Amino acid sequence: MEKTDVLVIGGSAAGVVAATTGKTNYPEKEFMVIRKQSPVLVPCGIPYIFGSLKSMDKNIMPDSMLTNADIKLQIGEVASVDKENKICKTTAGLEIKWEKLVLATGSNPITPQWLKGANQENVFTISKEKDYLDNLQRCLPNFQKVVVIGGGFIGVEIADEINKLDKEVTVVEILPHVLGLAFDEEIAVKAQELLISRGVKIKTGAGVKEIMGDGKASGVLLNNGEKVEADAVILSMGYSPNTKLAQGAGLSVNRLGAIRVDEYMRTPDDPNIFAVGDCAEKRHFITRKVNNVMLASTGGAEARTAGMNLYHISSVKAFLGTIAIFSTAFGDRGFGAAGITEREALREGVDIITGAFEGIDRHPGTQPGTNKQFVKVIAARECGLILGGEVAGGPGTGELINLIGLAIQNKMNICSILTSQIGTHPLLTAPPTAYPFIKAAEVASRKFCHQ
Amino acid sequence: MEKTDVLVIGGSAAGVVAATTGKTNYPEKEFMVIRKQSPVLVPCGIPYIFGSLKSMDKNIMPDSMLTNADIKLQIGEVASVDKENKICKTTAGLEIKWEKLVLATGSNPITPQWLKGANQENVFTISKEKDYLDNLQRCLPNFQKVVVIGGGFIGVEIADEINKLDKEVTVVEILPHVLGLAFDEEIAVKAQELLISRGVKIKTGAGVKEIMGDGKASGVLLNNGEKVEADAVILSMGYSPNTKLAQGAGLSVNRLGAIRVDEYMRTPDDPNIFAVGDCAEKRHFITRKVNNVMLASTGGAEARTAGMNLYHISSVKAFLGTIAIFSTAFGDRGFGAAGITEREALREGVDIITGAFEGIDRHPGTQPGTNKQFVKVIAARECGLILGGEVAGGPGTGELINLIGLAIQNKMNICSILTSQIGTHPLLTAPPTAYPFIKAAEVASRKFCHQ
Repeated sequence: MEKTDVLVIGGSAAGVVAATTGKTNYPEKEFMVIRKQSPVLVPCGIPYIFGSLKSMDKNIMPDSMLTNADIKLQIGEVASVDKENKICKTTAGLEIKWEKLVLATGSNPITPQWLKGANQENVFTISKEKDYLDNLQRCLPNFQKVVVIGGGFIGVEIADEINKLDKEVTVVEILPHVLGLAFDEEIAVKAQELLISRGVKIKTGAGVKEIMGDGKASGVLLNNGEKVEADAVILSMGYSPNTKLAQGAGLSVNRLGAIRVDEYMRTPDDPNIFAVGDCAEKRHFITRKVNNVMLASTGGAEARTAGMNLYHISSVKAFLGTIAIFSTAFGDRGFGAAGITEREALREGVDIITGAFEGIDRHPGTQPGTNKQFVKVIAARECGLILGGEVAGGPGTGELINLIGLAIQNKMNICSILTSQIGTHPLLTAPPTAYPFIKAAEVASRKFCHQ
Repeated sequence: MEKTDVLVIGGSAAGVVAATTGKTNYPEKEFMVIRKQSPVLVPCGIPYIFGSLKSMDKNIMPDSMLTNADIKLQIGEVASVDKENKICKTTAGLEIKWEKLVLATGSNPITPQWLKGANQENVFTISKEKDYLDNLQRCLPNFQKVVVIGGGFIGVEIADEINKLDKEVTVVEILPHVLGLAFDEEIAVKAQELLISRGVKIKTGAGVKEIMGDGKASGVLLNNGEKVEADAVILSMGYSPNTKLAQGAGLSVNRLGAIRVDEYMRTPDDPNIFAVGDCAEKRHFITRKVNNVMLASTGGAEARTAGMNLYHISSVKAFLGTIAIFSTAFGDRGFGAAGITEREALREGVDIITGAFEGIDRHPGTQPGTNKQFVKVIAARECGLILGGEVAGGPGTGELINLIGLAIQNKMNICSILTSQIGTHPLLTAPPTAYPFIKAAEVASRKFCHQ
């Protein structure tokens, strides 16, 4: 029987971060990560394998992140968790004894049961398994017309990448716009128009009835009767938490199928078992509702929280709910969101004010490479607390949405933005006279002050 | 006699922001900006005129920022301020009556009295006056060897730009490294090595004795006896506050020559007179010492503060000292700093811990355009309060240093960084598994927790 102090099941981003943070905080403890696959793909890099990186080998998570940190790496599939005796057993019969267990078992792409024709040849999902994606990449040259069902961020990223291969790509989305859950309409429209200008075809407000074909996909039949021809169909219709192991161990899951956890990422059933990443329960930072956000930003913070709280609980190192912060990019244009959208706030009965401003992301605007930069801020009407933000801009978008995310998580008020010192530089940022985040906060603050 | 409710003297960034913010907050009041020059250059864009923009006309601040906001623009030079009668008089004899006055008179480049030969032909400063810079730009084609005295950020930006014109540029800096005041040594070295690799010659630890020449500059004589040949010499040896008008009006200035102000940017001598930008007194956010920081980040925040507090004081909209946040870039590499440096903290007796981490600014690192990203965090040993940060990275550096600046200004603790949700994207940011700001905070936090 193997023995370790801390066993982490799952070697993707959340598992690795839980293990490395844990080892950093408890260097005297032994850590082991067990995972099925060898090697593991960088999860957020998966869409970029197809058009930008070209090779799967360029998107591998280095094992050195674990081995350099003196964390043991075990390849194997855990078949069962015995929480009474604190033992895991692998499919190969290996037993591993642990003190603390971290479940980072991730999620699986959804293939809806109701979708007729989804099990035909040339219908794919965006799995995180290397073997599966190797096969997809091998098959891609045979396809000219590709339909992506689902215009969430993975769907549009895959579509934009495959479009780079000079194929005819159509995204089919049931909402009025692609990225329509992450963004309010005005930002989603910008992303959609950009994708169209890059050559991606988009059909919105379009539900899918079935995938046509006689064993091999030949097209997609929409609810409105329209048929879209396809040599291949990619399903990007969401992911479900992978909790078979947890449920087998008697750990409770919520109504969305995710492993229940507290603010320290401990399962309520057993304080020695933690869950992090896509398999773990999510709660919205603002609405406090349970949701199914699956993002590296959330999973990474959860994993760090678990790693720090494995043996001692620290009240200042708790995970207080997901702000669903994320960013994406098409070419040199970036899009990002954090916190609550205006639409979500209105639906949930949060009384808000908003402000938006469009400027430029370099200055003067004559600088080569200048992009428009649009920023929207959402704040509480009663007190000016910053609740959400959205950005459409250039390469600085990723860090700008992180700045807004930091303001949300630290419960900052728009007044503190109005007096903020913001570094600006011709080649890197908007001008000091019209920094869009501050201008948007100014617009919002006038509604707050004058109510 | 002209009459306005609010008169702003100075039409560069600070003046424009004070006026536009003021008008937004007090739309019922009449605003007028009076300035000498027509047109005004975008101040931070000035270095980029020479190599990147090529034309002065591409770096003009649009008057529409004022006129679209219903702010009157008056061209003229104010000769005197009569604070008892609230009247300004211009050199052309125009009298303007006001209720509130904002001084945004900026700064002038320093030509040291002790520097022999500084008044010769072909010795230039980086003035903000268009006519002066027009002349420099006209003369530039005649020069092959250019020496820039002073390796602060304006000096190195000018040097890098002139280097793009295939000239031989040498920066002479008295400190051990260029940018040696803004950055700790490890970051300053990175910037210096980058500049050298781009073709700029750098002589550090090198004081200047005199500018050689017989009426026309022919070189620079260093304190160590070395002579550097030059067809032209550019002095980048700092700026002094332009306070002639304020002093004439009997407003008090501090020992560095800047107009004294309180946290609402009001002069202590007259609550109806405000001063903002380079002409106004600066105090360090952390050490509370008076200093001579002159940056758009500071000036912009001061100007917004003045604009919001013109007629009503708001305790949540005060300016609490400069964090000296700024960024610069050479090609696609960015450098930024905010708050206190390690060197400054040690000199001032602030008990600190530091953490640093070098990662990448895209992910996986095989993505085209990936840069190294180095982040250093400085925090208070006693409590983990974030006091400073420095970044050397790619195009995201500008917003990343703003994120760190926001943490400093809002008195965040490194613990709140450890649990932060950070959006990451292959094309825009570092990976979620090794986001350098978080990793640097982790390094620092270990010193904090284990003391």
